[in-house]
This record gives sequence, structure tokens and C-alpha cells, in this order.
Amino acid sequence: MAEHTISFDRDGSVSVPTGTLLTEAAVQAGVFISQPCGGQGRCGRCAVQVQNGGVRRRSTLRLSEEDVAAGYALACQTVVESDAQIIVPDQDTLDRTLTSDRVVAQPAVPPGYDPQRDQSVRRYCLTLSPPTMDDQRDDWSRLQTAVAQQADLPQLTISLPLLRQIGPVLRQGDWQVTAVVSIGEDAARLINLLPGPVSNEAPLLGLAIDIGTTTVSVWLVELLSGEVIAQTAEYNRQIRCGEDVISRIIYASKNNGQAELRRLVLESINTLVERVMQKAGSERQVTSEQVIKATVVGNSIMMHLLLGIPAESIRLSPFVTAVNHLPPFTAQEIGLDIHPEAEVICLPGVASYVGADITAGVLSSGLDDAPDVSLFMDVGTNGEIVLGCRDWLVTCACSAGPAFEGGGVRDGMRATRGAIEAVWIDGNTYEPTLRVIGNSKPRGLCGSGLISLLAEMFLTGVVDKGGHLNQHLATDRMRQGESGPEYIIAWADETWHGRDIAITHVDIDNLIRAKAAVYAGISVLAESVGVPLEMAEQVLIGGSFGKYINVENGVQIGLLPDMPWDNFKFLGNTAVLGAYHALLSQTAQQRIGEIAGRMTYIELSADNSFYEAFTSALFLPHTDLSQFPSVATQIEDVNEKISRKDAKVFS
Amino acid sequence: MAEHTISFDRDGSVSVPTGTLLTEAAVQAGVFISQPCGGQGRCGRCAVQVQNGGVRRRSTLRLSEEDVAAGYALACQTVVESDAQIIVPDQDTLDRTLTSDRVVAQPAVPPGYDPQRDQSVRRYCLTLSPPTMDDQRDDWSRLQTAVAQQADLPQLTISLPLLRQIGPVLRQGDWQVTAVVSIGEDAARLINLLPGPVSNEAPLLGLAIDIGTTTVSVWLVELLSGEVIAQTAEYNRQIRCGEDVISRIIYASKNNGQAELRRLVLESINTLVERVMQKAGSERQVTSEQVIKATVVGNSIMMHLLLGIPAESIRLSPFVTAVNHLPPFTAQEIGLDIHPEAEVICLPGVASYVGADITAGVLSSGLDDAPDVSLFMDVGTNGEIVLGCRDWLVTCACSAGPAFEGGGVRDGMRATRGAIEAVWIDGNTYEPTLRVIGNSKPRGLCGSGLISLLAEMFLTGVVDKGGHLNQHLATDRMRQGESGPEYIIAWADETWHGRDIAITHVDIDNLIRAKAAVYAGISVLAESVGVPLEMAEQVLIGGSFGKYINVENGVQIGLLPDMPWDNFKFLGNTAVLGAYHALLSQTAQQRIGEIAGRMTYIELSADNSFYEAFTSALFLPHTDLSQFPSVATQIEDVNEKISRKDAKVFS
Repeated sequence: MAEHTISFDRDGSVSVPTGTLLTEAAVQAGVFISQPCGGQGRCGRCAVQVQNGGVRRRSTLRLSEEDVAAGYALACQTVVESDAQIIVPDQDTLDRTLTSDRVVAQPAVPPGYDPQRDQSVRRYCLTLSPPTMDDQRDDWSRLQTAVAQQADLPQLTISLPLLRQIGPVLRQGDWQVTAVVSIGEDAARLINLLPGPVSNEAPLLGLAIDIGTTTVSVWLVELLSGEVIAQTAEYNRQIRCGEDVISRIIYASKNNGQAELRRLVLESINTLVERVMQKAGSERQVTSEQVIKATVVGNSIMMHLLLGIPAESIRLSPFVTAVNHLPPFTAQEIGLDIHPEAEVICLPGVASYVGADITAGVLSSGLDDAPDVSLFMDVGTNGEIVLGCRDWLVTCACSAGPAFEGGGVRDGMRATRGAIEAVWIDGNTYEPTLRVIGNSKPRGLCGSGLISLLAEMFLTGVVDKGGHLNQHLATDRMRQGESGPEYIIAWADETWHGRDIAITHVDIDNLIRAKAAVYAGISVLAESVGVPLEMAEQVLIGGSFGKYINVENGVQIGLLPDMPWDNFKFLGNTAVLGAYHALLSQTAQQRIGEIAGRMTYIELSADNSFYEAFTSALFLPHTDLSQFPSVATQIEDVNEKISRKDAKVFS
Repeated sequence: MAEHTISFDRDGSVSVPTGTLLTEAAVQAGVFISQPCGGQGRCGRCAVQVQNGGVRRRSTLRLSEEDVAAGYALACQTVVESDAQIIVPDQDTLDRTLTSDRVVAQPAVPPGYDPQRDQSVRRYCLTLSPPTMDDQRDDWSRLQTAVAQQADLPQLTISLPLLRQIGPVLRQGDWQVTAVVSIGEDAARLINLLPGPVSNEAPLLGLAIDIGTTTVSVWLVELLSGEVIAQTAEYNRQIRCGEDVISRIIYASKNNGQAELRRLVLESINTLVERVMQKAGSERQVTSEQVIKATVVGNSIMMHLLLGIPAESIRLSPFVTAVNHLPPFTAQEIGLDIHPEAEVICLPGVASYVGADITAGVLSSGLDDAPDVSLFMDVGTNGEIVLGCRDWLVTCACSAGPAFEGGGVRDGMRATRGAIEAVWIDGNTYEPTLRVIGNSKPRGLCGSGLISLLAEMFLTGVVDKGGHLNQHLATDRMRQGESGPEYIIAWADETWHGRDIAITHVDIDNLIRAKAAVYAGISVLAESVGVPLEMAEQVLIGGSFGKYINVENGVQIGLLPDMPWDNFKFLGNTAVLGAYHALLSQTAQQRIGEIAGRMTYIELSADNSFYEAFTSALFLPHTDLSQFPSVATQIEDVNEKISRKDAKVFS
């Protein structure tokens, strides 16, 4: 078959046969092309510009005729037919550095943390009696006895690779050695054996790992002091194979997708591990070989993909996981570049769409131990919601869709440089004021920007309570676009890419559906236990997205329940915080297991009351205004003002 | 560096740089050269003939000047300096096929064997309730519940690779599956999961593996019936790296020797596994993937080398192993080509030189359960001896050296085609009659042949009780050789290789030291417990070598205690038989553990009484003739006859 040379503008070229997908050629060339929908040709985000070359477009969905005329093609739907030069638009290249700027503040070590009591990994300096002709016990028995003399442990086990090392290490250390042991309920396992005594000051390292669908976070922790030495985060490299979990599951089921996704997330984690070691290494002498424990959280799909476990059943009714409670593994089994024998604890999830990120998040929020009822929310592509207290816990997951992460919205984007994160609209001129991440020219709208925009549009009458754009508005920002009415947020000459940034009727519809799904989930949970939402003392909001939501805006559009602002607590990345707690304390780890066991999971897709609640929530802020008294007041004010301007929008 | 072409007579050629050892070049060319001493230049067995080429001999120990003049060189001590042609003498090429002719008879299934009670591996046909929207348990919980409903097992564990399979297998089998589970004391482990129900008649396969220093034996066993489906054996491929355990330990400590020895023994085992599968496959549909359990026995060095565990400490005072009681492994961890999750049980040893072959051998001999005292011997390169009964067990190992396996004797060889295995000497003419394995022309003497020869020489006055050759004998078979007096057993024109086969003074000395070491070991054991040897009801002789010893000859030279012939039981390969018992029965497996725990090990090298006993045994049959009353009688007869011939040898 004929070979063709495909050059990518900045990143070199590859030779591929006729019929190769541009996305495949890009992978071979090491060029990153975003494929939020997993290469299904649905999202249009993989559009590239083809110059001087012949390609065949299988589909041009999401591309206009002008786009195609200008050479644009969907990389996931376009095959090579001759040599070609490809330009990958800048806006689709992920800004990989920014995420780490947004790491959370140094968490406090849990009060009263005592590694001798709480930590499952212990270090023992041992002095063994050397073998003699009168004492010919084998090395392993001798070592077991020495450990037993220092600590009352269950039966000590050892792996074959370590068994190969003990003889030489015992002799190298002249029968003085340092043993690192992981202690479980029924057995203790030797993790490492080092020649000679090790100073008590020498660090004993662990990792708390949170695998988000979008972002992977890694904390390097000194296990004896509990100190977080370094933390870092980057985009989950699986993003190129699909932006949401469903796209990833589909990608995994194709060809070698399962292995590819596993490789990518491991690449993300291991890169971050390298980075935290570098960060820490500038001050102290630490190596990744010293990392002997890790806890991992993530939603159920991320956990399956990390472990290479097929996740197909999660996507299909009746939506079950292969496994919720994972046994402990070694780093080597999983593929983490730390000490091969390191204990890796994948924390337990509850269901297909309520994973370890939520159980760990609930722990770190303290909800499961509180006397009063709290509401816990982690909103991203999916909204996971927990309602409960120390006596009971109910949970559900609502498919919010990707709108809050910038997906399914024409000018949506992730919260990176150039994303509009807040909008204010002048009620008289309808001119918007924007706050852009990185203070750059705007490239698009991220989730918090979209929520802010929707709230402002609603309160200024740019949209009505049904989400319809008011086309009679006295501003040239309202116009008819290709897919119906749209409101211009930034003019082409103000933007990064020289194209207008607008919000369309379809975008607004997606946003309202997303917020309705989340609010309906909250309502169903409250109904299911017969507890009125007002009873919740606190609304605990986890997840990095939650951190940037403006509560007022969230309440105004009916995403968040209408409560005093003081009741809202933004906890940041509760998942990694929970992993950190479990990393330090066996009790915390067990408590996460108990949370997973205690939670009553309500499957919304099997729940008729959910559809009712969802339909009621498809308005701004809600059909039942009595649920949003503070917003009702604002609306009255606005209506009054609008009626004065003789442009009554709200009926 | 200059490259030279080294051609091996039959097996092609390689290009190697100046300074390459001939043994290394041979490995690269895939040519087998025996290195009994492990490449130390001590044994002289790797001698090759160099034609048309330049080499440098670092050492010519064991080669005569004539040998060197004829082009002979020690391959392990000779480096390449130019192109050369190498002839590898035929006699050093191992006859690999013969060993398998000598497999033992089909063993009986242990009476009352009940897999439902005795077998640690069980198979369950399971019907699971499929998941529904009302029952969204994860696959693994569902499977655990289904197993628990069928059997009262400890907590079921699973490996990551299997965890990856359960989802697809459950659905492929439409929620009907067959689970294979290995049941331990504290936990049960899922070994395999197959879609759909499996007939109760379908075989469940296991392997009993005995790794001898010389021979590796593998039995394929149907675990439900206990039937041995096929058995086979071949030389341990490690032989090329050293014939005895000490040479192997030395080889392991050099360069990449550890990995090489591990690879070689795995190659032996996996070749045998393939062969038993072929043997079995002609009648039934079986595959190595169906083998889900194996038990392994071998001396402590063989166990260490199989597992890649350094064995150096075994060789050096105070002679300790890295590990005696090994945890269970999976086939994948060890490298066996059977089901990767198969349970592999390496049975426990007692000390550096009393390994799992002996503990398993004691079990299969029944000694540990007998009311009366028995003596158990396994004589090969090392002689392992156990004395005891159901109430007590003592054991020791005596370094007999390689004489009984044909080593350390000029014309010694292993018991393969061409080996003289029995000798009769005419008391008048001193003419020998020979029995040769395979009825071929003789190539050398194997262990049983040497014992037979020594006994005959002693009883005909060819050697005296001190082992000195009677140089005044009226026969041209007695002559002065290069290393002193020697007795010709076969003339050059009668032999395979056209050289005389003789036994030298040095050979006889080695043989007497070997038998003295074994007998001294027996004496010390008896002394240590204060039990006279005569009290032993039985002498149980294990090991394939033992099978071919002529008891009369053994007693005559003072290797075996002087007891009625009926008291001797030749049990064949007791080690593999013990492995077979442990493969079938958990109780047998535990009993081997108990035997290992119960045995009192006596270290002979630290025992003064051993040297005394050894010195006393350095005569034929012994200094103290009262210990060998039957031989004393024979000697009297012979002395009488010799004195009649006026050639008094015995004083």
C-alpha cells in the first residue's frame, strides 16, 4: 500500500499508508489532538486544517461548509490519501502547565496523628543474631523472628523478588537491617529490606493519588510526620481519547483502547510522581524508590481503566461495575514507578457512578461523622450527591453532561488560560464585562463562566425563565446564528482567536439540562429519606470545579439549593484529601470502607420521581419558585426594572 | 577487537572476539559442552580437540602432555586467538533420551483418596443471578456470594489479571460459570473462571515436579481421580554449568549465572511439561492451561536456583539457606508454562543439605508414621540420611562427593548407555565380566558399576582392606598408569571410544571416602539418639541411584549397614512420590511441613564424632569388622582361598 508523508505544522512528520486516520497519524507523530467524544465524530473538537494534500472526510458533522472550504477536517473522521500538511489549531492544544498552578493549599496534618498507632506501614531497625554452626536457621526464619521480637504482628509474608534479596541484604548490613512492613488485618507484608540501620529522621514516603476524569493530582507525603512535601497535578492524558467517562469506556472497547487508556493514565501519574520527587528533591534527598505506600481515588471508571479492568458494563444497563472493593496491590502490579513492592490501596467505590472519589470525599468532608444532616456535592461531568449524617447516608449520581466542564457548548472550554470564568451584564446596555483566566484575551467559556453568564442573562432579562433568548433586546449582541438565536459575549476583535465568542440557544438548553439534572438528584435524595432540603445544615461542595462556582450564581440558575451563603463550604479536592487521610491512617482507610458499605445508592435512571423532579427543574431557577425564595425576590426587582423599561420578559 | 570464526564439528560456527572462552563460544553456537565442575578447570570433562587454529590454554590440569600434543584443551580454560575448528568428543555429549526410559512404574492412587475432602483445589459450577436495576452489585461481589453459597470457604481473593477477566467471562457464560478455587488455611484464591458449566468428567490437572541435581522428573496427575496420566524425566539442563550442587552455586555467583541456572532448570521443567502434555494428549484433550496446581520438591540448592534466590550462603560456613519454608507462588511468578494462576507449592526443606526431596521422601516412605525405627537414605552426590519413627526423627547430610554419580573417577560416567553397571571378577584369573547399560560397548563406569567393581576387587583380593591395589597380582590387567597403579576393566579394543577403561588408585580412594562419609553419617545419627543400628527394622533407600545399588555389594564395601537383605526396601524416586502425595492431599502437604519441623538436623561438619566415624569407615568394609559380620565371613572364605594360592593380601 502507498505510503504518504503527513507533516504536522510544529511537530515533525510521519509516513503512513493510505487510509490512515489523521488522529492515528498524529499519535504516531507524537502530536496531541483533543478527542473529547472519543473519536466518534460527534464533538467537532478534533478539527484540523489540511494544507497541500489529499484527504477523504468520512464525516463533516459540526463543520460548516466554509470550514470545509477553508481546509478544515475532523481528524478522527478523515483518512490520508496523499502527502499532506496538517495544522492543528492552537486552541485545541491543551495548556498543560496551568493546572498545576491551581493546586490546593497545604492541608493540615490531621490533629493527633501518630504514625505508631495510625500508620499501616512501619519501619523496624533490626539486629539479628548471625547464624552459627549451632544456629543454622534460614535467613527468612531469622528475619521473621527478629521482626516478631520488636512488634506483635500477624504472620509476615514476603514476595519472591524480595526473598531473592534478603540473604545478600542481611550480610551486606552485617545482620543489622531496616525492615519496612505493611500491616494488614490478617497478615503483614515485608515491603523493603535495607542493609544497616536507618535514621528515624529518614523519610518514609507515600503518595495520595486522585485520578479525575479531567485532572490527575498527586501528593507526596512523609508518612511519619504526615507532612505533604509536594503536590502537583496535570490533565489526565486519557483526555485525548474522550473528554467524559462514557467516551472513554467506548474508546476502551475499541481495538487496543483498554491498554492505551491504561498506559495514558499511568503516564500521567508517573509523570506527576517524577515531578513531585523533583519538587521535593530540591530540599531533601528523596527518590521514588523510597515511596512505599500509595492510596488511589477516582471515579469507578477511572479506577477500572487504571487497572485495565473492562468497564463496558458500567455504560450499559443495569450499570454495574466489575468491582467496587479492590484488594491491595503492589506498585509493580499496577505499574506505578515507585518501590515495586509498595502497597497500593485503591479505595472503594459504591456503584458505577459513585466511586472512591466520593467515598473519600465524604470522609474528608466529615459528613459521615456529623450529627446534623449535610449535603455533599461533587459536580463535574457527572454530579455525585450525598445526603446524610452519622446515622445514614444516601447517594446518587446525575449525568450533568459535559456542560459544566465546557463541553457540549460551542464556545465552551476547560478552565485554562483564556477561559472566561465570570461575566457581568449591564442591565441597561446588555454589555458584558468579563473576567478571563490568566488575564489574556478570551478563548471561550469555562464552567464557572457559563454559570455566571447564565445567571446574569437571566437576571437581566437576556433569557427568560424557560431559557429562551429575548430576541427583541435592544442590542446588536443578540443575533441569529447558524443554529438559531445567539448572544455575543466577545467580538472577534477582542478574542484570542479572532472569532466571536457567543452563547447559543442550544448551549443554554444544555446548561439548563445539566443544572436540572443536579438539582433533581438533590431533590430525589431528600425525598427518598423524607428529609426536607432546608434541614441540611451544610452544603459541602467538593471537586476542583466546585471551588470556582459563584454560590449566588449557582442558586440563581437553580443549580444549588437556596440557602444562606454561610451554609456553603467549598472544600476543594475532597477526593485527594480523603486519599491523604487514608494514606496516613488505617482508621481513615477503614472508615472509607464503612462509608462505601453504609451508603444507600439510588439509581436515578430507575427512579420515576427523578424524571418528575428533572422536568420541574428545567426552568430558571425552577418551576416551583417557593424553593428559591431569595431568587424570587431578585426576579421581582428585575421584573420591576424591566417593566419600567417597557420590555417585560418575565411573565 | 579481532573477530574469529570458531567452527564446531557438527553444529555450525560462530564469530567471537579474541579472548572468548571456548565454552562461551560453544554456548553461542548452541553446542553442548559438559562442565561438571562449573567451569573451574578442575574436572577435565570439558576437554575438546582443537584443529587448525590458535588458542591459549590457561590451564591444562587433568590433561596429559600427549593430550595437549594431540590438540586437546579444556574448553573452560581456553581462549580463542584465531579462527579454529573444534571437535567436541562424543562421550561428553549427554544421552538425553535414555533417562526417560527409566521412569518408575505407575504409582497407586493413595487408598481412600477423596478430592472433596483432601484436595486443596476445588471446582464449582455456579449460576449467578444476573444484575438488574434493583440489584446492581458489582461482578466480583456477585461472584464471591455465589461461591460462598456453594462452599464454606475463607475469604476469597483474586489477582489483578483475573479481575480483568471476570466481567467478560460472566457475560460470555450468561451468568453460568465454572470457578476453580485454591483453598488455603486463611484464604481461598480464585485460580480460574471459565464461561458456562464444565462437566464433572473434565480433567482437573496438576503436576508433581522433582528437581534433582542430575534429573528432573515431572508427573501429570488428574487431581480428581488421583491418576498419574503421564510421567517423564530428563537431565537437569543445569548440568552443563556444574555436575554437583557446589559447582552450581559457584556458577550462580559468577556473572549472570544465577539467571542462567534459573533459565536452564525452567527450560528442563517446561520441556517436560510439554512432553507430558503430548503423552497425555494422544488419548485425551488436555492442555497445559488446564494445569492449575503443582508441587515441587528438590534439594535446597535446586529450590533456590529454581526461584532465583541466591544460594551462596549454603556453600559457606555456617551453611544456611535463604529460606526453608516457602510461601505458595503462582506459576507465573515462578515461570512455569501452565495456567499462570496455578498454585505452585514448593515443599519445605530442613537445612542447606536436607531439602524438600528428603522431607517429601520421608513422607512417601512412611517412616514418620511408623512405630518402629527405620533408616532412610537418599544417596547421590550427597547422601541424606534420616533415622527415626513416629516419635522422633534425626537427619544429616554427608558429602559423598560425585563418585557415586560417576564423578571424580577417571572413567566414571552417569548411568546412561555404555555405562558399566555391574562387574564380576574371576577370583582365579582376575578377568572381569561386565554388564553394560544398553548392551553397548562400554564407555565408562556408573555408580552402581563402581560399587560392584570395588566389592568384587575387594573380595578377590585385587584391592586390600585399605583400598590399595595388589600390584603383585598375576594379571596384565594390573599396571602402572600415569597416576600410579591401575586395574584395567576393559581393553581399548573392547570399548566404545577405543581407549582402555581402568580404575586407578586415586579412583578407589575417592570411592572409599564416599562410602565412608555415608556410613559415618549413619553411625553418627544412631549414636546421637543412642539407638544401635541393628534396631532399625528397615533400611528405606530412595533416589533413582539407590534403585540400582546391589545390596550385597553395598554391604561388602561398607556403604550400607550389614543387615538381612529383606530389611532393605528400594523405593525409587521417593521425592517425586512425596510431591505426588502432597499434590493430591492437603493432609500429606501438611504432614511434609510437620516432618520438616520435627526433624532434628545434625550438622556433621560441626560434629567431632563424625570425623572419628569417618576415619573408622575408611576401610573395606570398616575398621570394626564386628559391624559387618556377614562380610567378615566372606573375607575369611576369600582369605582362605587366597592363602591357598599363596598370595595373602588380607592381614
